[in-house]
Amino acid sequence: MDLTDLHWLSASDAAGLIRDGVISSVQLVEACLARVRETDARVQAFAFLDPEHALAQARAADEWRLSGRPIGPLHGVPVGIKDIFDTADMPTENGSPLHAGRTTSHDATVVAMLRAAGAVILGKTVTTEFAGRAPGKTRNPHDPAHTPGGSSSGSAAAVAGGMVPLALGSQTGGSTIRPASFCGVYGLKPTHGLIPRHGMLRLSRTLDHVGLFARTLEDLALLLEQLVGHDERDPDSRPRARIPYRDVAAQEPPLPPMFAFVKTERWDGVDADAREAFAELAAHLGERAEELELGGAAGEALEWHRIIMEAETAANLGREWETGRARLSPALRARLERGREVPAVDYLRALARIPALAEGFAELFAQRYDAILTPAAPGTAPAGLDSTGDPAYCTLWTLAGMPALSVPLMQGANGLPLGVQLVGPRDGDARLLRTARWLAARVAAE
Amino acid sequence: MDLTDLHWLSASDAAGLIRDGVISSVQLVEACLARVRETDARVQAFAFLDPEHALAQARAADEWRLSGRPIGPLHGVPVGIKDIFDTADMPTENGSPLHAGRTTSHDATVVAMLRAAGAVILGKTVTTEFAGRAPGKTRNPHDPAHTPGGSSSGSAAAVAGGMVPLALGSQTGGSTIRPASFCGVYGLKPTHGLIPRHGMLRLSRTLDHVGLFARTLEDLALLLEQLVGHDERDPDSRPRARIPYRDVAAQEPPLPPMFAFVKTERWDGVDADAREAFAELAAHLGERAEELELGGAAGEALEWHRIIMEAETAANLGREWETGRARLSPALRARLERGREVPAVDYLRALARIPALAEGFAELFAQRYDAILTPAAPGTAPAGLDSTGDPAYCTLWTLAGMPALSVPLMQGANGLPLGVQLVGPRDGDARLLRTARWLAARVAAE
Repeated sequence: MDLTDLHWLSASDAAGLIRDGVISSVQLVEACLARVRETDARVQAFAFLDPEHALAQARAADEWRLSGRPIGPLHGVPVGIKDIFDTADMPTENGSPLHAGRTTSHDATVVAMLRAAGAVILGKTVTTEFAGRAPGKTRNPHDPAHTPGGSSSGSAAAVAGGMVPLALGSQTGGSTIRPASFCGVYGLKPTHGLIPRHGMLRLSRTLDHVGLFARTLEDLALLLEQLVGHDERDPDSRPRARIPYRDVAAQEPPLPPMFAFVKTERWDGVDADAREAFAELAAHLGERAEELELGGAAGEALEWHRIIMEAETAANLGREWETGRARLSPALRARLERGREVPAVDYLRALARIPALAEGFAELFAQRYDAILTPAAPGTAPAGLDSTGDPAYCTLWTLAGMPALSVPLMQGANGLPLGVQLVGPRDGDARLLRTARWLAARVAAE
Repeated sequence: MDLTDLHWLSASDAAGLIRDGVISSVQLVEACLARVRETDARVQAFAFLDPEHALAQARAADEWRLSGRPIGPLHGVPVGIKDIFDTADMPTENGSPLHAGRTTSHDATVVAMLRAAGAVILGKTVTTEFAGRAPGKTRNPHDPAHTPGGSSSGSAAAVAGGMVPLALGSQTGGSTIRPASFCGVYGLKPTHGLIPRHGMLRLSRTLDHVGLFARTLEDLALLLEQLVGHDERDPDSRPRARIPYRDVAAQEPPLPPMFAFVKTERWDGVDADAREAFAELAAHLGERAEELELGGAAGEALEWHRIIMEAETAANLGREWETGRARLSPALRARLERGREVPAVDYLRALARIPALAEGFAELFAQRYDAILTPAAPGTAPAGLDSTGDPAYCTLWTLAGMPALSVPLMQGANGLPLGVQLVGPRDGDARLLRTARWLAARVAAE
């Protein structure tokens, strides 16, 4: 085994090799750290990384395994954590100078779950300012003159750049799906409430989701399986039956899946090469894909999303507004100002529309479709680092709390990656992974 | 058995006599209808009552029993339903000319639960306008020159006046506890989310509760036991373990309960005779009652309650505002106007305070107290029918979602009833009933 290439191993393969004693966690983490040294000056995916602390975790993992005690599914495997999840052993700065040097004494629930599964928390990845629109320092690993997308910029770039096989992000608008598309990795925003958010920066109870990044679908399912659980400290978390995500994702669908190709009302805003790529994909799927126009509610949904996000964000960042608004970006300041003006009745009315919206989609899936197939973004990663790109192609699915997955299947005329977004019904996360696997295999067989 | 007095039977006794074939449901319902004929011209508790329809239900109940099929715990027992719960077989007018003649094709969840338990839905009881502050036509059965309280005016008066042994009301501010106190019956506002609200007029998801009225504690427990359950159509409903409320309520507490006598910040607003009655009660309880001053949060809670109630009510009555505001009472119009002005950030901030408030009370109960003992209202039912009285002594417990119980233990200098409000921790409903039984026995033994 060539130890210098270990950082490109999938998490599933790496966990298996560690379990079998073929490689050690220290060897894997050393390879990832070497990759970080080699590339991160250019990509800047990490906000905090202490190599010694990462290696100490890896050594502890190796010692544990050698002691013969049972090990978890991610034993010894490094994971990157977006810098909006609290970690007891690393600072959590939320991408803002207002929180510079902020430390907490507890792990976020998902971080604790990862540690329980045996993972090595490699470091904290760059987030945009308070997971909003003002960019961090990260660049796209495929071309450093382009944005990696955001707000989970560092997590997407670190996974795409081979610095870590798995990473956590978040999504309140399009913060997981968009950077996954731009960086050419798998990104998953699961069903709302499926993964507990305790210890994650709270912008919007209604819209905040934990996001997942990996380079393979199998890895995404493996990661998801560690993170699903009930935590009473997240008011939207519920006790649920345990679903074997990896097993379901690996299965062949009983019938070839049926896709609803949704161009969205913003199809005109999609780049010509991306429109062409989607048309080719739909043609390739033949009768397994039908173009579907969404009704009026979907058009209004962007406005409901804006109202809810701005009002809840303004309430949740109330202290930052009161004590440090001069140190917020002009974009965030403007967003908070708008949020502070939203009347409660408008907010409540927007909130009240969500169940019917989700219900309408549930019927669509129950009747005919396995997944919606739709752009993750209007094209490949835009040039420049001033913007993280347009999240509008993600917001409808975020608002409805439905699982969304970016599948790295295509590329633009400029050679940069272009993701296909698949969306399933609420609580259909496992089936969505299975459908995505079918699609990826179908495209590969082309 | 004197058939002319059956209407004063408790629901528990009546259900037992029907089960044993000593009386029929028709006899019981006829007695209640006779009582209504005799007194309701004066009290005006009912908004809708079709004697033939009530008797038809009773006849069906008797036939069912005679067929030998299993019967429910309320088989053949009449219940009054506040006119804000949808009933498939009777109009539901919500106390407003805007909804005059409104009918629905479905029963509210609680109405369906009552029918499943075998109850006869006797009729719909008077509510104030949209369960708010503008009075309905009902008078206090103890003195028709006095208000029965509100908004569950008819339900409290019908139970107090012997027209029906059980009735459903609601509470968003003090709409169950206050009329129960004024009318001298037991009133229970259970833990938030314990009883599903689907099919009940929605004013405020955060604050709306189903309320219960009965003339005995045993009946209250019997009624509660029929209504606890999970309904996914109420977003605050949860699956829960089945608790045998009647059994727990009938038990002797393992130790004599400990009461926290909370005078509230509004003690100065309590009538002199009521203050004296509470002081005597506390003295009678000796070391089992300790005066407790609540901290600052309790003082602010009235304002949080107002913000949440006004904003949510304005959103939920948006259509009535748009299409018929001229036909709303000036008081409700003013409330909706205020509600429409509430900024979402203030609303969200108020909402965010509730968990800590409830947590603080939970600790208090865990450490030392079985129940809080506090006024249900500033005194007995005020003279006049222009106001339903002051709900402020109930709002804190409503906001915190804690179970509250009005126990008809005292009377004022004018001879009118005066309730003692007992409050327990969330999900401590069964224990609260048991504590109330202990207290009632202790006072009776005086």
